[in-house]
Amino acid sequence: MAKPTPLAPLEPGATIGILGGGQLGRMLAVAAAQLGFKTHIYDPEPDCPASDVAAQATTAGYDNMRALSAFARSVDVVTFEFENVPARAAAQVASVAPLFPRADILGVVQDRLLEKSFARDLGIQTPAFADVDSPEALKAALRNIGAPAILKTRRMGYDGKGQLRLASQRASAKAVAMSKHSPCILESMVPFDCEISIIAICSRDGEIAFYPPVQNHHESGILATSRVPAKLSKKAERMALDATHRIADALDYVGVFAVEYFVIKDRIIFNEIAPRVHNSGHWTIEGAVVSQFENHIRAICGLPLGDPSARGKIEMRNIIGDDVDLLPTLLLDPAAHVHHYGKKIARPGRKMGHITWVRP
Amino acid sequence: MAKPTPLAPLEPGATIGILGGGQLGRMLAVAAAQLGFKTHIYDPEPDCPASDVAAQATTAGYDNMRALSAFARSVDVVTFEFENVPARAAAQVASVAPLFPRADILGVVQDRLLEKSFARDLGIQTPAFADVDSPEALKAALRNIGAPAILKTRRMGYDGKGQLRLASQRASAKAVAMSKHSPCILESMVPFDCEISIIAICSRDGEIAFYPPVQNHHESGILATSRVPAKLSKKAERMALDATHRIADALDYVGVFAVEYFVIKDRIIFNEIAPRVHNSGHWTIEGAVVSQFENHIRAICGLPLGDPSARGKIEMRNIIGDDVDLLPTLLLDPAAHVHHYGKKIARPGRKMGHITWVRP
Repeated sequence: MAKPTPLAPLEPGATIGILGGGQLGRMLAVAAAQLGFKTHIYDPEPDCPASDVAAQATTAGYDNMRALSAFARSVDVVTFEFENVPARAAAQVASVAPLFPRADILGVVQDRLLEKSFARDLGIQTPAFADVDSPEALKAALRNIGAPAILKTRRMGYDGKGQLRLASQRASAKAVAMSKHSPCILESMVPFDCEISIIAICSRDGEIAFYPPVQNHHESGILATSRVPAKLSKKAERMALDATHRIADALDYVGVFAVEYFVIKDRIIFNEIAPRVHNSGHWTIEGAVVSQFENHIRAICGLPLGDPSARGKIEMRNIIGDDVDLLPTLLLDPAAHVHHYGKKIARPGRKMGHITWVRP
Repeated sequence: MAKPTPLAPLEPGATIGILGGGQLGRMLAVAAAQLGFKTHIYDPEPDCPASDVAAQATTAGYDNMRALSAFARSVDVVTFEFENVPARAAAQVASVAPLFPRADILGVVQDRLLEKSFARDLGIQTPAFADVDSPEALKAALRNIGAPAILKTRRMGYDGKGQLRLASQRASAKAVAMSKHSPCILESMVPFDCEISIIAICSRDGEIAFYPPVQNHHESGILATSRVPAKLSKKAERMALDATHRIADALDYVGVFAVEYFVIKDRIIFNEIAPRVHNSGHWTIEGAVVSQFENHIRAICGLPLGDPSARGKIEMRNIIGDDVDLLPTLLLDPAAHVHHYGKKIARPGRKMGHITWVRP
């Protein structure tokens, strides 16, 4: 028995279910609390970062249909903090409680090949790309696309994981092995001037708003810093906002999502969609009038959107792995907004926190 | 067996115990989480506002010494969100875990007569006041102080509770009854130009910082609005900061506290001390570089203080009782920072939330 989608806005005291209890879930839970909502976190790991700030937590796997149903029955609306929610889990939850963003968008964004094709079909420029389902297909793709190129698994990649750079047209042994074991996509490397992201907010009744473009710098495939305003021509900004708007409309999206683009002079080239609050939007907590986290909560609860304008010139730096040892030093800067996600172990590449500076 | 006071700063992952789980505890818990700390809330009410954003909650009375001990053993430092923590409860907790602010300040601030005498002894101007321990003492005090005056219970008053205005020198029947049943203080009514509060932050190693003075407007004894900057002469501001500094030194205070003053032209007159984060500092969440809540957590954990500067012109309005019905309308203003404390029942005079606007 599915609950009907509640067209009425949720009222304070209602409970929001969040699939995934990492730092994004944690910051969503805090934003929800500010508006008077309770949160219930669902995560396979006990003691996950978000559970520290939630009214309730369920520790269970995404293959546990009974636990997913009980979770969904206990809440008024469900959202997720990561795009790799298994389709069956999302369908199970959505059969019990309203799920925003809707489950059907996951098919597109969980598969790099479908995602790139989707963007191209909307008339948005993408890097050259080809389906790679065998070592033979890899060789053919390399001939067509040329080097340098980047081989990615179609599914489950993030933060540079599941990616291999190919400097020459000869496929390395590693690349051949990868193409044998996982469905892949080969993409041409884009000689970009800079990388940006556009963070959009879509309300339940079709309103859309955008945070100012963010300029991002990655190191080893992981976001290192984000800056606002981005250095980008008015023309490129217009193109990026327009492309993001088309993506929102095509997905009939509800909530916050981010699209990453490469910028080459006045052109933008699509990289990927993150159907969730995004690391390049963490600056919005102190740097925007209303944060991406609060706006995501407002959107999925049917409330009016808050103002996404920037409140100054902003820099956000991720604290990754051992960087966390610098915390005492970082705290000495009285103007630094220090965020620690409460994770106990600082593995290499693990996002432990971030810092934001807002200057007038 | 008391733990020794930890002179080392607390590290992320440590747990902060909070006595009291209302909205102040809730906002403290959120600030603690941002810095990577867990919180454990102690409150007699189940399902209190702070428990929604805390890793752990104990529901027990302040007279339950066993529960207080267990609570204190489970945390690394303890603080409180209200000044009426019973002395025995504070002593019990402090015998197990470090308590900041220290328990000995409670004696002064829980008793309006001791509090006013303490300020006067520091050379800070107070309203004329007198001890009222009987109907006879009330009559004598009214003769000396004159009307209009205000009769207050010495203990347990807040938000205008336990207060009676006396318009003439003839004591009303209500006032006589009050003076018979509770130890009271009679204070002259001050014909002030405006009311302000000074919010101070004291680190564990003696650093002190101040938020800019806040101009407050009360209705029916309850804070209605706070504004920054306050309209106040440089001379009055200097006097208020100096008086607050003397209070901090005399109490050897650790954490955030607020002092309310009446302003008459260039003079300030002491009203009261709140040894905790304060309603007139809620604007600091979005309106200051670092909020009063985060700075209280920093102070009690032995971390460096954050910048208390204002980020613009600020107005904060409390949402009291039925005002909460206006929430849908308030949410339509995209620049309003809306806070709802998650309380279910909107009793008259109950603080349900607040809104902050920050203008450049």
